[in-house]
Amino acid sequence: MLDALFKPKAVALIGASTKELSIGNVIIRNLQTYGYKGEIYPVNAKADEVCGLKSYPTIADIPGEVDLAHIIIPSQFVPQAIEECGQKGVKAVIINSAGFSEMGDEGIRLQEEFLANARKYGIRVFGPNCQGIINSDPELNAYCNFTFTFPKPGSISVVALSGGVGALIMQVLDDLDIGQRLYASNGNACDVSIPEIIQYYGEDEKTKAIILYTEGFDKPREFLEVAREVTAKKPILAMKAGRTEEGAKAASSHTGSLAGVDIATELIFEKIGVLPFHDEGEMVRAAMAFSSQPIPTGNRVGIITNTGGPAVIATDVLIDFNLEVPKLGEASIARLRDTQFPQA
Amino acid sequence: MLDALFKPKAVALIGASTKELSIGNVIIRNLQTYGYKGEIYPVNAKADEVCGLKSYPTIADIPGEVDLAHIIIPSQFVPQAIEECGQKGVKAVIINSAGFSEMGDEGIRLQEEFLANARKYGIRVFGPNCQGIINSDPELNAYCNFTFTFPKPGSISVVALSGGVGALIMQVLDDLDIGQRLYASNGNACDVSIPEIIQYYGEDEKTKAIILYTEGFDKPREFLEVAREVTAKKPILAMKAGRTEEGAKAASSHTGSLAGVDIATELIFEKIGVLPFHDEGEMVRAAMAFSSQPIPTGNRVGIITNTGGPAVIATDVLIDFNLEVPKLGEASIARLRDTQFPQA
Repeated sequence: MLDALFKPKAVALIGASTKELSIGNVIIRNLQTYGYKGEIYPVNAKADEVCGLKSYPTIADIPGEVDLAHIIIPSQFVPQAIEECGQKGVKAVIINSAGFSEMGDEGIRLQEEFLANARKYGIRVFGPNCQGIINSDPELNAYCNFTFTFPKPGSISVVALSGGVGALIMQVLDDLDIGQRLYASNGNACDVSIPEIIQYYGEDEKTKAIILYTEGFDKPREFLEVAREVTAKKPILAMKAGRTEEGAKAASSHTGSLAGVDIATELIFEKIGVLPFHDEGEMVRAAMAFSSQPIPTGNRVGIITNTGGPAVIATDVLIDFNLEVPKLGEASIARLRDTQFPQA
Repeated sequence: MLDALFKPKAVALIGASTKELSIGNVIIRNLQTYGYKGEIYPVNAKADEVCGLKSYPTIADIPGEVDLAHIIIPSQFVPQAIEECGQKGVKAVIINSAGFSEMGDEGIRLQEEFLANARKYGIRVFGPNCQGIINSDPELNAYCNFTFTFPKPGSISVVALSGGVGALIMQVLDDLDIGQRLYASNGNACDVSIPEIIQYYGEDEKTKAIILYTEGFDKPREFLEVAREVTAKKPILAMKAGRTEEGAKAASSHTGSLAGVDIATELIFEKIGVLPFHDEGEMVRAAMAFSSQPIPTGNRVGIITNTGGPAVIATDVLIDFNLEVPKLGEASIARLRDTQFPQA
């Protein structure tokens, strides 16, 4: 269960900072701005106060329970921080810091070391080298993330390996004035995986449509099983970048995804009921339709228009997608005739 | 030459109206709002003044010369109005009124009658059943059109058979804060044709890129000859709707275009150097690039990014279009290395 991650009652920030625009400062301000309903505990050995909140020298000094901790300190100190989180009883961590498997041998060693500590205490790790999560539920308002788009509550949940594309998707949703339910961008994804997050979204009652952006699958079998189960309940709209050989190379230098040249993914998507997209704007607009409209029961689309050209374009597009454009029924035509000018 | 149409020194409005929001009123206000530098002559038998301008009972009463007249009166009076325009020495008319070839036998008869009158006097006819033209040249500011987007001066010229799509294109250009040079939406196109307008744009020095929206070609050979000639000098970006059988049917009921099922047009476009599009937004963004950037001399595109995911998507898209994404040169890499954080 990922409740400690998506529904944290108290968040600690190991590496809280008084320096404006630093990540250890921005996340606290984001939690405050978004109106987070839980406790916020900055951990900073040198400051008494961060963003108007009492700061603690170590996580052990925090008086209350902590279920989620952000880790925002240089990579070499992360294994020790996870050890201290374990002693405190922290259930999940979001490691925003970079400098792990994406950075060569020393990074891989550090990642293995902190993972061993996390497993010893049963701590779930989100990241490293990641943004974090958002839960827009007005009862919680958890903005555990350093981005800058504040979603209003909605029913579309987003999971994006790449924070850059995730932020873009959030912005498109926001530009369309569409709310969002849960958001997760998990970077290197060393523990909490995309299939796990999709399963969690599948079980979340208020999520009506799921948007997925990924550059590869570490555990393809797990993804297939989870996705097949979830698409039976709600639509998954997905974009897998790194489709071309060159794109796959770019993906590999980005998140270290093990993406080979990939012509099969979209066929697999269709087989398990995942809807594939090549364009994030189109994907978001489709999700908007799924979250606000009933799922169509057939392939017939009527067009009513007050100007001809756009209807001709729409007809072409519908036919390209194997949809039908039937003549409107007699009753609809009669009703339009009664209410419109004769030239229409 | 279409100078009387695109560079009118004086515009008469046969059917000028004191009624707000009527076309005979909106066009006058548009000319005034856009700062038209020529003379505006309302023709209205019942009013002394329209939009603050002296009105004349007939076009014969106008004291000065008139090179362009809008005709905004019911179709049955249009042949007589063209006769009067001929006697006055008018060189071109924009017939905004509908009710001609798109409306059955009586409309076809009226269209033939006014065309005969126009030919007798050598008057060029734009329309009927059309919006009109815009020339954004600050020396002229001719907004001979009843739409509501006021383009700033630019170097993209637009010709759109459908006024609805034309207005959409204008709005997308405006949303992107891109200027526009000449605009024409010629509806039934009974005389001044799309090939003629493209030829005119081709000869216009300040037009750097041409956008074309059409639903069919009455004179395909003329179009081919003109387009081939113009694309040697400047790019033509085109969208031909009614590609599918169903779309062609919709087009035929819209502007009466003689569009058969059409799979060859885009092949022909490519052969003569016209760039085909299926989406008006993409077409406008491409025109924006052509009007502001030099034409690339090869197919190699470098990507510089501050976040990986969008670069992976961009790589996929470039490869889909047969472009290359080479490694950046050593000098570029060294320069980026010197100016960026080591993690970048």
